[in-house]
Amino acid sequence: MSSMKAAVFVEPGRIEIQQRPIPDIGPTDALLRVTTTTICGTDVHILKGEYPVKPGLIIGHEPVGVIEKLGNAVSGYHIGQRVIAGAITPCGQCHPCLDGHSSQCGGHAMGGWQLGNSIDGCQAEYVRIPNAQANLTPVPDGLSDEQVLMCPDIMSTGFGGAESGHIRIGDTVAIFAQGPIGLCATAGAKLMGATRIIVVDGVNERLEVAKRLGADITINFKEQDPLVVIREQTQGAGVDVAIEALGTQQTFESCLRALKPGGTLSSLGVYSGKLSMPLDAIAAGLGDHTIVTTLCPGGKERMRRLMEVVASGRVDLTAMVTHRFKLDDIVAAYELFSHQRDGVLKVAITP
Amino acid sequence: MSSMKAAVFVEPGRIEIQQRPIPDIGPTDALLRVTTTTICGTDVHILKGEYPVKPGLIIGHEPVGVIEKLGNAVSGYHIGQRVIAGAITPCGQCHPCLDGHSSQCGGHAMGGWQLGNSIDGCQAEYVRIPNAQANLTPVPDGLSDEQVLMCPDIMSTGFGGAESGHIRIGDTVAIFAQGPIGLCATAGAKLMGATRIIVVDGVNERLEVAKRLGADITINFKEQDPLVVIREQTQGAGVDVAIEALGTQQTFESCLRALKPGGTLSSLGVYSGKLSMPLDAIAAGLGDHTIVTTLCPGGKERMRRLMEVVASGRVDLTAMVTHRFKLDDIVAAYELFSHQRDGVLKVAITP
Amino acid sequence: MSSMKAAVFVEPGRIEIQQRPIPDIGPTDALLRVTTTTICGTDVHILKGEYPVKPGLIIGHEPVGVIEKLGNAVSGYHIGQRVIAGAITPCGQCHPCLDGHSSQCGGHAMGGWQLGNSIDGCQAEYVRIPNAQANLTPVPDGLSDEQVLMCPDIMSTGFGGAESGHIRIGDTVAIFAQGPIGLCATAGAKLMGATRIIVVDGVNERLEVAKRLGADITINFKEQDPLVVIREQTQGAGVDVAIEALGTQQTFESCLRALKPGGTLSSLGVYSGKLSMPLDAIAAGLGDHTIVTTLCPGGKERMRRLMEVVASGRVDLTAMVTHRFKLDDIVAAYELFSHQRDGVLKVAITP
Amino acid sequence: MSSMKAAVFVEPGRIEIQQRPIPDIGPTDALLRVTTTTICGTDVHILKGEYPVKPGLIIGHEPVGVIEKLGNAVSGYHIGQRVIAGAITPCGQCHPCLDGHSSQCGGHAMGGWQLGNSIDGCQAEYVRIPNAQANLTPVPDGLSDEQVLMCPDIMSTGFGGAESGHIRIGDTVAIFAQGPIGLCATAGAKLMGATRIIVVDGVNERLEVAKRLGADITINFKEQDPLVVIREQTQGAGVDVAIEALGTQQTFESCLRALKPGGTLSSLGVYSGKLSMPLDAIAAGLGDHTIVTTLCPGGKERMRRLMEVVASGRVDLTAMVTHRFKLDDIVAAYELFSHQRDGVLKVAITP
Repeated sequence: MSSMKAAVFVEPGRIEIQQRPIPDIGPTDALLRVTTTTICGTDVHILKGEYPVKPGLIIGHEPVGVIEKLGNAVSGYHIGQRVIAGAITPCGQCHPCLDGHSSQCGGHAMGGWQLGNSIDGCQAEYVRIPNAQANLTPVPDGLSDEQVLMCPDIMSTGFGGAESGHIRIGDTVAIFAQGPIGLCATAGAKLMGATRIIVVDGVNERLEVAKRLGADITINFKEQDPLVVIREQTQGAGVDVAIEALGTQQTFESCLRALKPGGTLSSLGVYSGKLSMPLDAIAAGLGDHTIVTTLCPGGKERMRRLMEVVASGRVDLTAMVTHRFKLDDIVAAYELFSHQRDGVLKVAITP
Repeated sequence: MSSMKAAVFVEPGRIEIQQRPIPDIGPTDALLRVTTTTICGTDVHILKGEYPVKPGLIIGHEPVGVIEKLGNAVSGYHIGQRVIAGAITPCGQCHPCLDGHSSQCGGHAMGGWQLGNSIDGCQAEYVRIPNAQANLTPVPDGLSDEQVLMCPDIMSTGFGGAESGHIRIGDTVAIFAQGPIGLCATAGAKLMGATRIIVVDGVNERLEVAKRLGADITINFKEQDPLVVIREQTQGAGVDVAIEALGTQQTFESCLRALKPGGTLSSLGVYSGKLSMPLDAIAAGLGDHTIVTTLCPGGKERMRRLMEVVASGRVDLTAMVTHRFKLDDIVAAYELFSHQRDGVLKVAITP
Repeated sequence: MSSMKAAVFVEPGRIEIQQRPIPDIGPTDALLRVTTTTICGTDVHILKGEYPVKPGLIIGHEPVGVIEKLGNAVSGYHIGQRVIAGAITPCGQCHPCLDGHSSQCGGHAMGGWQLGNSIDGCQAEYVRIPNAQANLTPVPDGLSDEQVLMCPDIMSTGFGGAESGHIRIGDTVAIFAQGPIGLCATAGAKLMGATRIIVVDGVNERLEVAKRLGADITINFKEQDPLVVIREQTQGAGVDVAIEALGTQQTFESCLRALKPGGTLSSLGVYSGKLSMPLDAIAAGLGDHTIVTTLCPGGKERMRRLMEVVASGRVDLTAMVTHRFKLDDIVAAYELFSHQRDGVLKVAITP
Repeated sequence: MSSMKAAVFVEPGRIEIQQRPIPDIGPTDALLRVTTTTICGTDVHILKGEYPVKPGLIIGHEPVGVIEKLGNAVSGYHIGQRVIAGAITPCGQCHPCLDGHSSQCGGHAMGGWQLGNSIDGCQAEYVRIPNAQANLTPVPDGLSDEQVLMCPDIMSTGFGGAESGHIRIGDTVAIFAQGPIGLCATAGAKLMGATRIIVVDGVNERLEVAKRLGADITINFKEQDPLVVIREQTQGAGVDVAIEALGTQQTFESCLRALKPGGTLSSLGVYSGKLSMPLDAIAAGLGDHTIVTTLCPGGKERMRRLMEVVASGRVDLTAMVTHRFKLDDIVAAYELFSHQRDGVLKVAITP
């Protein structure tokens, strides 16, 4: 058998299951048999044609699987080993990687994001993992596929938002939007010692999940003005760190307005259209503000650490997998996920 | 004698010398007899009514002087001692100060900037320095007034731009605009170990000064496209840090376009009107970029360090004082400085 | 009434209750009526003559109280307000304070520690707080004296150990000794995102408390070799951060031996006698190790943050107050505490 | 021709030129034809048997050369390209490398140091470079072999000492010992903005070189007590950062005694015998001191940055090459270098 099923981007509006050859691998690659994967918000952007990829590309960048083959330059692993790889698969050996910017591997923006972007991805029976030596991470015994399914992207990105905000013990943090990434940012903020976590969303179910993950105060923006509540909660001072987890002018701007002078906006959203900077919110450039954007950190050490978090029980994200689909039914999964039907947070896809 | 001459903001377009009472001081203040001061670009914004202050305010925030009186809660200084204070005079004792944001003293944006902003300033024969214990800094013997005249604002701000950019040994840095603050950012970038400093301005004389202060490559934007030159100079990679020292859409945007993925825009400019974020330049929020704004750091330890830099001979900014005026003639000085006539960089004002 | 009761160090081995004048205050001071205080391990060192202070000194540096008087240079507080101050009372206005080393206020080692060290302390009915503007911190409504009693020293120090170790999400941390400070370091490590916290002590009761505060693995060194267990737990890699919370050659050395190459030893202990560096444990100086020592951070922003932690419920240290005494009975409290009788962790003293 | 000349460690006291096979390479390796190399102080420790390596090992870890062969997993280079590699050749793909500790590659202490330590080195006509993708760095046109000869070790280590000390603009820095590494630490301290650099050595010629590289104050410890001079120079405050560049009890201890409270000892020395910590110098563990040890940073991005420093002219280390030898005469070179005869700083060896 040398062919496999895979979810392929055909054209804007159309992702379908096709038969494709099982990938060949080079000396620094590995071939994984995918056991579980999921759909990301970015995949929906691809589906809609909002984020352009080449027609014919296999989509997906969140693999849990089993090693099927290893390139001859890859060592320390064995066939049959259960592993994950991050959505971002840096080489670890180029100038940006060695300079601390591994998500920007190769020196072009987002260069570390290859799976389901510049090369075929993992919504398939098999996937080729590039730079395998830097990216394959064994799953600890006792953790299920679903328990580690958030590590490759959602958890790494969300936690990355908290980390880039340099959250400190006793910080007050506001997080705008509580989709999967925003929820992970909430969990990450708690994990780093924020003691007053204020989250904003328009869906009460998501606010409920946020509470379980660490939010102290929840704001449904349809019912309350977030900036008014934040001002009250901080006696007018503003928050130390605001995390943007949606990618709109409004949330970006609200983050800046929520900050205290000297505060940090940690941005996770993917913006489109126009983004303007509210000058009054940053004291015309004199407020000692920091705005930092973060692409999902990858690499095997990152994945190891995230699985340590899962194994420790500090954070339990299993409630985020709300629906399960077979790979064959992935079109239906996209349908559900892209319309946020039925309270969906994340779906698990099994080939 | 209980009155003094002072430069007073009367209304937009009009600053004039008036007779004013010599200031009273409280327990935590000091009274300085000003020996030298200067005019800042911000003062020009005040003059033009672009930055609003209360009519009747004495302008100026860069004092070199001699201690005339000390509040009873101030110790460790003596009458007659020659000192400077920073443009920013933080208290050191409020929550933001103790949290590392002393320029935002008191918790409102720019709260540390009092002189010539929220209280009377130093373009006068005498000035009251608030929070004197945290701000009076003795001038080392052997340094002239003019040698330390850049410390309170220009040098602290420009260096701050380099520091907020976290410049490292071997960095390539681009600095947009080479007015007094941009020139100090150039000197600061060199001082921190940047090895390829690319500066951009439209005035060749300023580019010449920049070379003497550390610029490796100078670009007159009227003759060359800065982004093309920067791309060549970095083999397409972009710069590690870009410093914005003007406050316009164009320079802000050029900074972002000049950066490598993962790079830092350190912003010193004061923006007005609208500022929009070029999304393509930041990979729609996925390029791991940092944007940081910096208000002039103050306090006596900062001033001490800057005077150490001057005393060490590492940086020589005396060439920046191009013109000298008596306080009585300050209206002429504003006239010259605000129109950037006669190659002016900074003026020295002596009462 | 102008006299008060106070616990006075008379000579090594003898602390006693004496009548003393209620302190006068200067312009930058406040007078507190103490409502609750406690005894620190350092006070025991003073009692035993191991840490020298002047005979006649009032001991104690962990005050909870009510403002009785305010100096004329202190503003923003009112008589009758319930506050705490840290064990360390920095001025916020000297060079070391403004340079980020406020515990070393004034420029001499431990300069920020004044209460019960260089000036009279708070095991008394009243205490003068120096640099009140930088140090008085209102206690949030709803928090009892005992709930905030650990903030001035124990919690600030223990958390400081975690912070100085720069603990990151997913770190493995070993903490040697689980007295009050070690226990707070355990809580701090958890609060910062450590996911495998290994604690070592010889008293099972303390190990039990450690578990409740966040320890994942407890080692009674009388039963197991800590380094063997740590090696197993980390597959031979060693820990990212080791925290020393006792001050002995053995714990210091074990910390270094527990570290992975590149790891950080965060030291909280007070050492006496001789301390030698095990060269094999640091690869003769080539292992990229960091050793950092931390004195209890103080100042009102620090205290505010710690009380935020308490108020958030993230950490519950009330179980640490195991015994309660009247100030009149403080000699008995010292007797109990210094001999670690009856499972004592911390005592509450009320005048 | 398949054999080459190489300097081989035979037994303590004896390094000799032998004929050896030209190395084979694997998929991730490169073969360099060495054009210039040098002898390091560590090599002298090997010669003397003080640092143990396997008899039969080819010594040397500072290669300048030309690519002769490339493994099939290495891309982006071409045969005949002129390159350097660092003394430390990290893989960039293991957990420690991806966690920011690349000199400790593989997870054992000093694991990144392979050349002339765990595998054959470069005092030979040819050398195999492991992890070539992460380590080969093209030499910019216009730079000679000798100009970049210090990059692989001496410059990277010395600068690393300044960097690990987190030197800031306006710092006062003391550097103990001005051998090649100490001299590079001096240059690095200046490059990072230290404005008062105090260096200590017993050889006046070295102190003269130090002056040219940035030292402001030189102390011959045979003529003056360094701690007395440092105290005077800092008005009793002590230095911000002290760099140890020798590896003895005395210099380690002097560094600690020279520091201000809150200061950092950045240690580069290789210690032997016993090392004890002077408790009075660190306030018994309460002085907020940091001690950090640094092994030479490697990898191609590091090498690129160091060559940028050379190319920029900011630092000129060519005066450090005081003697030149043919590989055939390397025994004589060791003789000269190990006895520090004839004012030798570094030797250039050409096959």
